[in-house]
Amino acid sequence: MKKVNEMMIPLSHDGKIPLYLQIYEHIKREIIDGKISCEEKLPSTRFLSAHLQVSRSTVELAYEQLVSEGYIEARPYRGYFICDVSDLFDLGEREKEEITVEKKQKTIEREIKVDFSPTAVDLEHFAINAWRKVSKNLLYEESASLFQEGEGIGEYALRQEITRYLYQSRGVSCEPDQVIVGAGNEYLLMLLPQILGSNKRVAMESPTYMQACETFLNLGYQVRAVEMDMQGIQIEPLIQEDTDIVYVMPSHQFPMGTVMPLKRRMELLKWAALKEERYIVEDDHDSEFRYKGKPIPSLQGSDKNEKVIYLGTFSKSIAPSVRVSYLVLPKKLMEIYRKKCAFYASTVPKVQQMTICAFMREGHFERHLNKMRSIYRKKRDFFLEELKKRKWVKKICGGNAGMHILIEVQSHFSDEELEKLAEGIGVRIYPLSKYYIDGNGMEESPKILLGYGGLKEKEIERGLKELDKIMLFF
Amino acid sequence: MKKVNEMMIPLSHDGKIPLYLQIYEHIKREIIDGKISCEEKLPSTRFLSAHLQVSRSTVELAYEQLVSEGYIEARPYRGYFICDVSDLFDLGEREKEEITVEKKQKTIEREIKVDFSPTAVDLEHFAINAWRKVSKNLLYEESASLFQEGEGIGEYALRQEITRYLYQSRGVSCEPDQVIVGAGNEYLLMLLPQILGSNKRVAMESPTYMQACETFLNLGYQVRAVEMDMQGIQIEPLIQEDTDIVYVMPSHQFPMGTVMPLKRRMELLKWAALKEERYIVEDDHDSEFRYKGKPIPSLQGSDKNEKVIYLGTFSKSIAPSVRVSYLVLPKKLMEIYRKKCAFYASTVPKVQQMTICAFMREGHFERHLNKMRSIYRKKRDFFLEELKKRKWVKKICGGNAGMHILIEVQSHFSDEELEKLAEGIGVRIYPLSKYYIDGNGMEESPKILLGYGGLKEKEIERGLKELDKIMLFF
Repeated sequence: MKKVNEMMIPLSHDGKIPLYLQIYEHIKREIIDGKISCEEKLPSTRFLSAHLQVSRSTVELAYEQLVSEGYIEARPYRGYFICDVSDLFDLGEREKEEITVEKKQKTIEREIKVDFSPTAVDLEHFAINAWRKVSKNLLYEESASLFQEGEGIGEYALRQEITRYLYQSRGVSCEPDQVIVGAGNEYLLMLLPQILGSNKRVAMESPTYMQACETFLNLGYQVRAVEMDMQGIQIEPLIQEDTDIVYVMPSHQFPMGTVMPLKRRMELLKWAALKEERYIVEDDHDSEFRYKGKPIPSLQGSDKNEKVIYLGTFSKSIAPSVRVSYLVLPKKLMEIYRKKCAFYASTVPKVQQMTICAFMREGHFERHLNKMRSIYRKKRDFFLEELKKRKWVKKICGGNAGMHILIEVQSHFSDEELEKLAEGIGVRIYPLSKYYIDGNGMEESPKILLGYGGLKEKEIERGLKELDKIMLFF
Repeated sequence: MKKVNEMMIPLSHDGKIPLYLQIYEHIKREIIDGKISCEEKLPSTRFLSAHLQVSRSTVELAYEQLVSEGYIEARPYRGYFICDVSDLFDLGEREKEEITVEKKQKTIEREIKVDFSPTAVDLEHFAINAWRKVSKNLLYEESASLFQEGEGIGEYALRQEITRYLYQSRGVSCEPDQVIVGAGNEYLLMLLPQILGSNKRVAMESPTYMQACETFLNLGYQVRAVEMDMQGIQIEPLIQEDTDIVYVMPSHQFPMGTVMPLKRRMELLKWAALKEERYIVEDDHDSEFRYKGKPIPSLQGSDKNEKVIYLGTFSKSIAPSVRVSYLVLPKKLMEIYRKKCAFYASTVPKVQQMTICAFMREGHFERHLNKMRSIYRKKRDFFLEELKKRKWVKKICGGNAGMHILIEVQSHFSDEELEKLAEGIGVRIYPLSKYYIDGNGMEESPKILLGYGGLKEKEIERGLKELDKIMLFF
C-alpha cells in the first residue's frame, strides 16, 4: 500500500480537463482501486497544492468534490480521511455514468484526428495575457460596479466601443443607442418576431448558415430558399414571391464565400425600400478576416432607408465561448424594441461586457485582430499550397476571407459519401449539400467545406494526407 | 497654470463610476477648462498609477480613451501630450451628450433618495473575495479551457451542481441532463414556444410578475388573469376556460407573498395531468430566502406526471448582473428541445458558468446564502418593527420570505397617487395595482410593495420617515 503523501498526480495543463477534475479523478480512482486504504489521511490541501504546483483552491475544489460524493470525509481540526467506499450505495451507477462519459470523450478523440470545422477558431494565439490583465483589473478595481444591474441593451461604454469599431472597420453608421448587445446570434434573432411581428416570410440564400435557418423555423417564420448566382442572392425571386425579410451575408457568404458586388447590393436595398414591411438582415459574421483585396464596407453603411438590420459577433474575432453578439437596429425598429422589450435585462453578464469593453478600449482587440489576420492568412496560404498539389482538388473557391475554403472534388462519390469515408479514417469534412435549405444540393461533382481556423499547419498537412487515401478512387 | 505632475485626482471608490472613467473625466475637464495647457506632457502611466494608488492599466485605460477622443496624443518614446482641443470638431457635441448623461445620473440620484425596490438585492455583503479567488483561479489555471466551446445547454459540471443544490434545498428531482442553463428567465421563457408550440393559452395569477406576462405576450401567447384566493391561484377557472400553461410561484407568490398549501398544489398537478398539452411553469424565484416556518419543497418535487417546468435564477441568490437562470424540463420536453434546439450554443459565457460552478462546489454559494438569509432576516425584522410603529400601516403581508413586504395603507389616495406623492419627496414605492394583468386592481384601500433587500437599516428608517409626511393626510 503506497503512502498517500507520496501521491504523484500526473496533470495535463492543456486545459482540456480542469486541474481540480484531474486531481479528483486520480484520487477517486486510487480509492476505488483500493490503492489508498480506508481511514487513511489525505495530504493537507497546503501540502498537495505545493507538491503539485497548483493553487490551493484547486486542491480544495477536488477535495470538496470527493467529500460531496462520499469518497473522503473532512474531520474538523484533523483533515481529510478516506471513507469506506464499499457502502456508497450509488457508487456503481455513478461509476458507470462517469466511465461512459469518459469513454465517449476518448472515443471521439480517438475517432477524429483532424476536424476541418469551418467554424473553429484559433485559440492557441488568443491574447490571453491581455484578457487576464483586463479581467483581473476589473475584478479588483471595479468589482463593486460589476454586480450592479446594468442597461438592458448592454453597457453604454461597450456599445460605444462597438459603434466606433463598426464604423471604422465596417463602415456601419449608427449610434450606441441603436446597438443591442446579446448572448449570441440566435438569441438576437429570437428578438426579431418580437420587433417585426410573427409569421414573416424569410428569404435565404441556399446554401446558407443553417443555424439561422433553423432558428427562423423555430420562431414560426416561413423560410424560402432563393437561388444564388456569382453575385449572391438573386433579386427576381424576391419580387415574384412576396418576401418580408431577406437574410444575407454580403461581405462573405457562408458557405460559398461569394462577395456581393455593389450593383447587387444596390438592387437589394432598392427592393427593400419599395415596401414598408421589407427588411434585410445582414449577417457580417467573419468580415474581420479578409486576406485579399479591400474589405468591402457593410451593406448597412450604404442603406439610406433604415432597411438593414446588422448582425455581428465576437465568436470568431475573440472566441465562441465568449458568447457575445450585437444587433444594430434602424432607429424606427429600435423604438419598437424599446416599447415592447425595454424590460428585458441584458443577456450578457456585466463582467463579460466590461471585460470586452476594456479589451477593445485598451487596443487589445485591434492588435489581436491584426495578429490573427496574419496568422489565418499564413494558414490559408499554406492550405492553398497544399490543396494545389492535389489531383483530386478540381476547383477552389471562397479562400479570400473567413476561415474555410470550398472545394470541388474530383470523385465518383457524393459529398456525403466522402464525409462518411473521411470519418472512417478519422477526418471530419463538411459536405456542401448539408447547407442547402431544401436539401437539393445535388451537384455534378461533390463539393466540400474545409475549415482551417482551428488547425495547425501540421494538422492541415496530416488531414490532407489522410484524405488523399479516399479521394483517389477514380 | 498648474503643473500636471501635481495633478491630484479625487477618486471615489464606491464603484458607481469606474476608476479609469473618473481619471479620464478629470483630465478631460482640466484640458477643456484650459487648466492644463496645450503641448504639456502628462505624467507617465507609471508615475500617475503610483501617485493615485491604482493599477497602471487603469491609467492606461484613461489615457487610451483621451487619445481616442483627441484630447491627448501619444508620442513614441516620449509620452502623452496635451492636444490643442480648440479644433476638435465634434467636441461641442460630444460635450453636450456627456453632460446630459452626467446630468441624468445626477438628477436621478438627487430625485430618488430611497428606493424600496422589491427586486433590489444586497450587494454590499456579497462574497466578493470568494468570487475573486474563484475567478482569478479559473483565469490563471483553466484559461485554456475557458475559451473552448462548451455544451449548448450549459457545462455539465455546473448542471450537476445546480441539480444537487435544487435537490437538497428545493426537493427538485431531476438529472443534470434535464437542466438548461440560460441567460436569464426571459431568455428561457423564449424557448417555451419553440418546445411547446406557439399560440398557447397561459393562465397567470393576478397580480403577478409582469415581466413574465409581457414576455409571454411578446411571444404571441394569450395571457389570461386568474383570480387568487388565500391559497393561491384558483383551479375552477382553469377548468372552465381552456388553458394550456399555468404560470405560478407556489413557494412565494410575487407580489402577494402567498404560499400555496399542499392541497392546492395537488389540485393543480391533478389539473395538469388531465390533458396531454397542459403544463405548469413553476417560477421559484426567491425561495432561497425564507425567514419563518419550514421552506416548502418545490411543486416539481411532487410532480409524478412530467407536468412541471421549473424555473430558477441566480439573480437574487448571487446578483442580477450575473445573468444566469436555469430551466428544469420534464424528460419528454427535453427530448423535443434536443430535437429542435440542440444547435443553440449556450447563452452564458463559459467563464461565467465555470465561476458559478466553482463558487458552488467550493461551498461559497451555500455559505453566502446562509449569511444573506440572516442579513435579510435582520433587515426584515427591523423593517417590520418600524412598520408596526406607523398608524398609516393597516395590514402587513408576505413578510415571511423574499425581500419585500406588501402593505395595506390607511389613506384616501389611490396607490398610484401615493407613488407620485412619494416620488415628489424622493422615495420610490411600488403600487400593487401596477402588477395586475388586466389593470383592474382597484382595492378598497391602497396596497403598496416595499422592498428592503437593497437598503441599509438607515435607509429604511429614512425612507419611512419621508413616507410619514405623505401618509398622514387622512
